[in-house]
Amino acid sequence: MDAAPPPPTLPPTLGILGGGQLGRMTALAAVRMGLRVKLLTPDATGPEAAFADVTVGDWTDPAVLAAWMAGCTAVTVESEWAPADVLAALPGAPPVRPAPHTLRLVRHKGRQRTALLQAGLPGPRFTLAATSAEAWAAVEEFGGRAVLKRFEGSYDGYGNATVASREAVEAAWTRLADHDGLLVEAFVPFETELAVIVARGADGAHVTYPVALTEQRDHRCHAVTLPAGLPSAVEQEAQRVALGAVEAVDGVGVVAVELFLTAAGEVLVNEVAPRPHNTGHVTIEACHTSQFENHVRAALGLPLGDPGLRVPAACMVNVLGHTEGPGFPEGLADALCVPGAAVHLYGKTGSRPRRKMGHVTVTADSSSDARARAEEAAGLLRL
Amino acid sequence: MDAAPPPPTLPPTLGILGGGQLGRMTALAAVRMGLRVKLLTPDATGPEAAFADVTVGDWTDPAVLAAWMAGCTAVTVESEWAPADVLAALPGAPPVRPAPHTLRLVRHKGRQRTALLQAGLPGPRFTLAATSAEAWAAVEEFGGRAVLKRFEGSYDGYGNATVASREAVEAAWTRLADHDGLLVEAFVPFETELAVIVARGADGAHVTYPVALTEQRDHRCHAVTLPAGLPSAVEQEAQRVALGAVEAVDGVGVVAVELFLTAAGEVLVNEVAPRPHNTGHVTIEACHTSQFENHVRAALGLPLGDPGLRVPAACMVNVLGHTEGPGFPEGLADALCVPGAAVHLYGKTGSRPRRKMGHVTVTADSSSDARARAEEAAGLLRL
Repeated sequence: MDAAPPPPTLPPTLGILGGGQLGRMTALAAVRMGLRVKLLTPDATGPEAAFADVTVGDWTDPAVLAAWMAGCTAVTVESEWAPADVLAALPGAPPVRPAPHTLRLVRHKGRQRTALLQAGLPGPRFTLAATSAEAWAAVEEFGGRAVLKRFEGSYDGYGNATVASREAVEAAWTRLADHDGLLVEAFVPFETELAVIVARGADGAHVTYPVALTEQRDHRCHAVTLPAGLPSAVEQEAQRVALGAVEAVDGVGVVAVELFLTAAGEVLVNEVAPRPHNTGHVTIEACHTSQFENHVRAALGLPLGDPGLRVPAACMVNVLGHTEGPGFPEGLADALCVPGAAVHLYGKTGSRPRRKMGHVTVTADSSSDARARAEEAAGLLRL
Repeated sequence: MDAAPPPPTLPPTLGILGGGQLGRMTALAAVRMGLRVKLLTPDATGPEAAFADVTVGDWTDPAVLAAWMAGCTAVTVESEWAPADVLAALPGAPPVRPAPHTLRLVRHKGRQRTALLQAGLPGPRFTLAATSAEAWAAVEEFGGRAVLKRFEGSYDGYGNATVASREAVEAAWTRLADHDGLLVEAFVPFETELAVIVARGADGAHVTYPVALTEQRDHRCHAVTLPAGLPSAVEQEAQRVALGAVEAVDGVGVVAVELFLTAAGEVLVNEVAPRPHNTGHVTIEACHTSQFENHVRAALGLPLGDPGLRVPAACMVNVLGHTEGPGFPEGLADALCVPGAAVHLYGKTGSRPRRKMGHVTVTADSSSDARARAEEAAGLLRL
């Protein structure tokens, strides 16, 4: 019998584990390119609701995953906490990018730090403390001030404590420590924070975005500016360190590397996120290929796109919730009056304090102009 | 009894009559802004399939329209042939933008030409011919060469005939004339073709995009370049004429005005399309606010956005079908290797000769560079 004829050319289907804003913006990039998307999310929070092919279900259940993965050409994640490992263990699973071993490595801050150290990358001194006594000893060794971090589940200021006394260590230990202890990192008196997005294919091919200047407020990303305006040696060092970090965790897809820049001009790795990242949203308008498009390309084994700037400068400012309430802001018409403001809202059904509800990007001839207008427009969106 | 409390802030819902590529890109722009969309289309051809809220049904049926319009804050169209007038006549219909009177005016090329003439706008000489003898008399009066156009349903070379003899007029009349005759336009020996996108609100507020240079092949849009590289007096005249044409048809939303530029530097109106247009796709990457976003804004009564260029130059090249076959091209990986190529594919389930299947836009420092790379990438997508 002859082989069956080849099927008609069909678009690849990207499965996205996660239905928050990162999954939404990844899906928008894929749709623009004519690709199909299907999303799986444990909760219908709103951002997923725009799309046709969405499954809401217990995504740790192998039966749910097996039914959902049918027809996926490849699967990616919007979070390192997505059950990629459960999926990848199923018979007949499509490629999962990033791979589960990358997700397991990255989501345990102790293993992540150890991998970066073993790769010879610069970072703060650290100890994996099994007891509060070990933690205090490390704090003393690091000069009396350190950051204690939960190994798993610390982000945006949650699960962290900056300590400078034995009492503070004990209090943080009681509040934060898990069965395997806590990560103790030397406090870095950094001057600025930077972030570099790297996109990397399963074949190791990669592109590195320009270095972004990031500003946090209350432990959350507030503003991201491109270019960062750094001396070129620092820009290159930041890109070198970022790529090294991505390779150290064997990231595939988009990986964000957050960095500290010290007064001495030293670049240190803060942390790695193996997925599209808040610090990369600015690439939608600022770069030839956005982080989301490159995440899609890498996950599907397509060639990576040009990460270079297509504009002189750009700035993104986050729109956070301030109260419990509806997810759509007041003030949209005002924000849209700010020249050049590209307003992104995530369609979440509800707002709460500090929740990321949207962002505004402005591209301009100078980063200060972009920064001022993005700040103005974001500030007019009230939630 | 007290008045009911105000409802929680909900995002506006834009109803889009049409599910082709223009509806799809309008919907993508709306989703990015956190707005809701619902589409109504008579046929499921593929571009609509990405979205959650799609109705496929007989959109000339008032019952179908009435059910669909529930929950729409406003309704817009992707085509002047959408049944906006049936919808607008229903009790409780939301605002329809553009208004049905604009659609009726524009889709009849005789009424459109008459309105433009009455507004004092430059255009080719024309006659509304009720008989073939009147048509031939007009051809002779216009110098022996003219274009005959069906009043309704002529586009992209369909329903048109360029004639220079009595026999050709008779043949075209037999083939094309409807009960009310044909439009006869003087043949314009134009040097180049231009297009200007105007976005206009229901309140008359408007923004005018930079003039685009357009190139047709085989009567279809092939390439669109921004900026057009015109002397500033010509650029301003083209924008003035375009705005005048939009006001002459009382367009609301995005309106595209196609123009002829003669060797003498004269700008003439070719035709008007009261909706997002192929010549405006380049604005997605090239301008601060895309034509699709401004169409959404205008339809919902939101302030219009900055139409200015955010890059030095950009070019869009269409991807057309060449054969009957699947709607997803071969060669995507090759096209994605062209630096800076932004590939847009419309998700149509099937291709056929001359069908618009997608487009590629490249932004660059020069229009010639953008043109060459967009051409290269589009040429690698085979359908």
